[in-house]
Amino acid sequence: MADDKKLVEAITSMDVDFAQWYTDVVKKAELIDYTSVKGCMVIKPAGYAIWELIQSQLDARFKETGVENVYLPMFIPESLLQKEKDHVEGFAPEVAWVTHGGLEPLQERMCVRPTSETLFCDFYANEIHSYRDLPKVYNQWCSVVRWEKTTRPFLRSREFLWQEGHTAHATAEDAEARTIQMLNVYADFLENVLAIPVIKGQKTDKEKFAGAVATYTIEALMHDGKALQSGTSHNFGDGFAKAFGIQYTSKENKLEYVHQTSWGMTTRLIGAIIMVHGDNSGLVLPPRVAPVQVAIIPIQQKKEGVLDKAYELKERLKGFRVKVDDTDKSPGWKFSEQEMRGIPVRIEIGPRDIEANKAILVRRDNGEKKEINLDNLETEIATLLDTIQVEMLERARAHREEHTYTATDYATFLDILDNKPGFVKAMWCGERACEDKIKEDAQATSRCMPFEQEKIANTCICCGKPAEKMVYWGKAY
Amino acid sequence: MADDKKLVEAITSMDVDFAQWYTDVVKKAELIDYTSVKGCMVIKPAGYAIWELIQSQLDARFKETGVENVYLPMFIPESLLQKEKDHVEGFAPEVAWVTHGGLEPLQERMCVRPTSETLFCDFYANEIHSYRDLPKVYNQWCSVVRWEKTTRPFLRSREFLWQEGHTAHATAEDAEARTIQMLNVYADFLENVLAIPVIKGQKTDKEKFAGAVATYTIEALMHDGKALQSGTSHNFGDGFAKAFGIQYTSKENKLEYVHQTSWGMTTRLIGAIIMVHGDNSGLVLPPRVAPVQVAIIPIQQKKEGVLDKAYELKERLKGFRVKVDDTDKSPGWKFSEQEMRGIPVRIEIGPRDIEANKAILVRRDNGEKKEINLDNLETEIATLLDTIQVEMLERARAHREEHTYTATDYATFLDILDNKPGFVKAMWCGERACEDKIKEDAQATSRCMPFEQEKIANTCICCGKPAEKMVYWGKAY
Repeated sequence: MADDKKLVEAITSMDVDFAQWYTDVVKKAELIDYTSVKGCMVIKPAGYAIWELIQSQLDARFKETGVENVYLPMFIPESLLQKEKDHVEGFAPEVAWVTHGGLEPLQERMCVRPTSETLFCDFYANEIHSYRDLPKVYNQWCSVVRWEKTTRPFLRSREFLWQEGHTAHATAEDAEARTIQMLNVYADFLENVLAIPVIKGQKTDKEKFAGAVATYTIEALMHDGKALQSGTSHNFGDGFAKAFGIQYTSKENKLEYVHQTSWGMTTRLIGAIIMVHGDNSGLVLPPRVAPVQVAIIPIQQKKEGVLDKAYELKERLKGFRVKVDDTDKSPGWKFSEQEMRGIPVRIEIGPRDIEANKAILVRRDNGEKKEINLDNLETEIATLLDTIQVEMLERARAHREEHTYTATDYATFLDILDNKPGFVKAMWCGERACEDKIKEDAQATSRCMPFEQEKIANTCICCGKPAEKMVYWGKAY
Repeated sequence: MADDKKLVEAITSMDVDFAQWYTDVVKKAELIDYTSVKGCMVIKPAGYAIWELIQSQLDARFKETGVENVYLPMFIPESLLQKEKDHVEGFAPEVAWVTHGGLEPLQERMCVRPTSETLFCDFYANEIHSYRDLPKVYNQWCSVVRWEKTTRPFLRSREFLWQEGHTAHATAEDAEARTIQMLNVYADFLENVLAIPVIKGQKTDKEKFAGAVATYTIEALMHDGKALQSGTSHNFGDGFAKAFGIQYTSKENKLEYVHQTSWGMTTRLIGAIIMVHGDNSGLVLPPRVAPVQVAIIPIQQKKEGVLDKAYELKERLKGFRVKVDDTDKSPGWKFSEQEMRGIPVRIEIGPRDIEANKAILVRRDNGEKKEINLDNLETEIATLLDTIQVEMLERARAHREEHTYTATDYATFLDILDNKPGFVKAMWCGERACEDKIKEDAQATSRCMPFEQEKIANTCICCGKPAEKMVYWGKAY
């Protein structure tokens, strides 16, 4: 048992250094590894399996709303990227450029897609002719590249995996309805699958997507009180349609521009899971995205019948994702590993348990232990996983509520932003200048104008002019 | 019913011009579209849905053998690509080079991965230290880029989707066993899911992968008598391990190099499905990869009860992928569309059928019609889909047998290659010179040295020297 010598290495406490804690968890839970390609990472099996569970469950929700998947090229010719003015200004500074194909220089350089609006528009301009061709509700799963200067695993990397939905509609109303529909799909997915509560709202003009008329967002609060933009849904109006000439003949035989949307979520969600649920023992995974939901750890596994019993329990739990840890490590080491990897439930089973027809279940999220009668194994596990899923969401919601503040004067507002990590609700006049000042004074940004508005004051927190909008402010990843 | 005016456009007959027939089917079954990015294509919903079915079923088979999925960067720094000599020579002429990130030139240019051996080796060199770390059996689903001069949808495009498995083992025997295991997974998948029979064998040195010790292949015969290499599995020995320094400490505490494999299949499989099963009415999909398995086409759908009945049948067929065509097109148009898209079974249901509690089932693969009692709908459909799946494989196998020839003298050999499209079995001495000569004389290549050898002569078909190996020869895509 040579492994016993090294034991699970300690990770930095999240209270001491949250950023270092995050990096430690990401590495020690074996989610990612760094590579020779600066700013890019390897997503290792334990990390990629989470992405597969996100992908399959999100994709099923998309398809229920009529989404169809497609695949477009990864390259965008420079002239195509330049067709929509705001869009190219937003993305050109951070794209990777391909200049040579094989041994020859290209006639026109191409960027690796940072996002695919321009390609979808080019495609739709060929595909859409009549009102019968609408709506188009397409999505693709792919990787994109943004040449960021500073990178962090999952949160900001030069290449990341995502889905990008791109739709075209006959009317402005249809486009707006789809934009909101997909935001709701995202919010529901985060709450019910990832156990992460979100604030739904609209981005200010300053924070909206390059080329969009309106950007909607779901904002989540991490354990350290910083916000994470977790998914966005954009209404483009007919701006791209005009730039790319995407027109259709209406029922009334008139030539009209289409109205478009796009919406995306990324591997950054894995970062959100880590930072919302993790603790000082490592990762804590919600059961619905846990690649392994139950770890069966045999005690005194060399005694006759113990391993057989462990496999028998696994066999009985076929409807769940279960692993027996039958390596030659000590039980203590196995417990630490299971905790580091965030496996929601551990079953401890040894000779005395077997004799008494019992087992110990241990919850990863709160450490609670429970002795169960093995006759009830299947229902106990099913109930426990459901309970954990629900309670993780409740706990995250309580944490967010505890870290959401209200400010009605600027001094208090800045004091909260300086000293109390979390969201601050405050009124805003709608002027960019106030957003810029707040950014400068407090390094905080407007996270969103929430759909659920409260009139907590009549005037802007910054300039004192009349204000209609309540905004969530915060520091963000 | 404005659509009635245009009817389904005719496609070129496959006997007149097979290449044009292929292009027509690909376009008119709405599998792909061309783009502004030369040599790259859009995979449209009908095409991508086939890929999703390939991907999910192949991935499940991989996981049964212990494969874990990962994701590595899409970029390879030039210095990394150059570490293995044969490999860089094989791929450097056809890669796309990224030279700028944002507004700055890169210190070192990077290519977009044409395949990821070098990245996996770099990763494994960090990950593997002890015999306990072995084997590593990783796979990734991604897109790759090869800057081809001539492109054809699915068969050869500058960017394509694939999976690439990369494994590392303690011994040469383990690596060889995994190489053959994955070839068998591929062969089984093609036969049982895609209904495409394959020849399993080894590539000659001339045709093997750049950097491999041995390349194994599955070769399929298309309807026009040309071969399509449909999947390959490579044994690298310890060549890459030596180039990249991938070493582990053995149980005996000795430092050893790992032995590696890689194996891949691509969206080219969709091209194979089209060219093996398609006919002059369009695509013919095997039920197991048909995004829609059953099209219910109502007759006189405006009559009361007809559409309701169609939806009722769909509801009863929940275990299958079923679509009701309730558009305002004529039944004839709908039939043509269903045929063009290759949907395996059509259910025709009209007022008289409903009254008699009957329906007509029509098979896409051979046009056979059958009247059924609606009470037996579920079992009739289940049986029919199974029958179609099996008979499509049998038909493809019979076609291949009819187009497989044997030659024992060079004149006959050349005559067959010139005049009888198909495989030709002939003996080979093992010399590259004979392969080169055959390529020049007949534009044919060695497809593989099949595992099932037959001694059809004692001497090489080309040079007359003693020969041990029987080879399948043919013209190929």
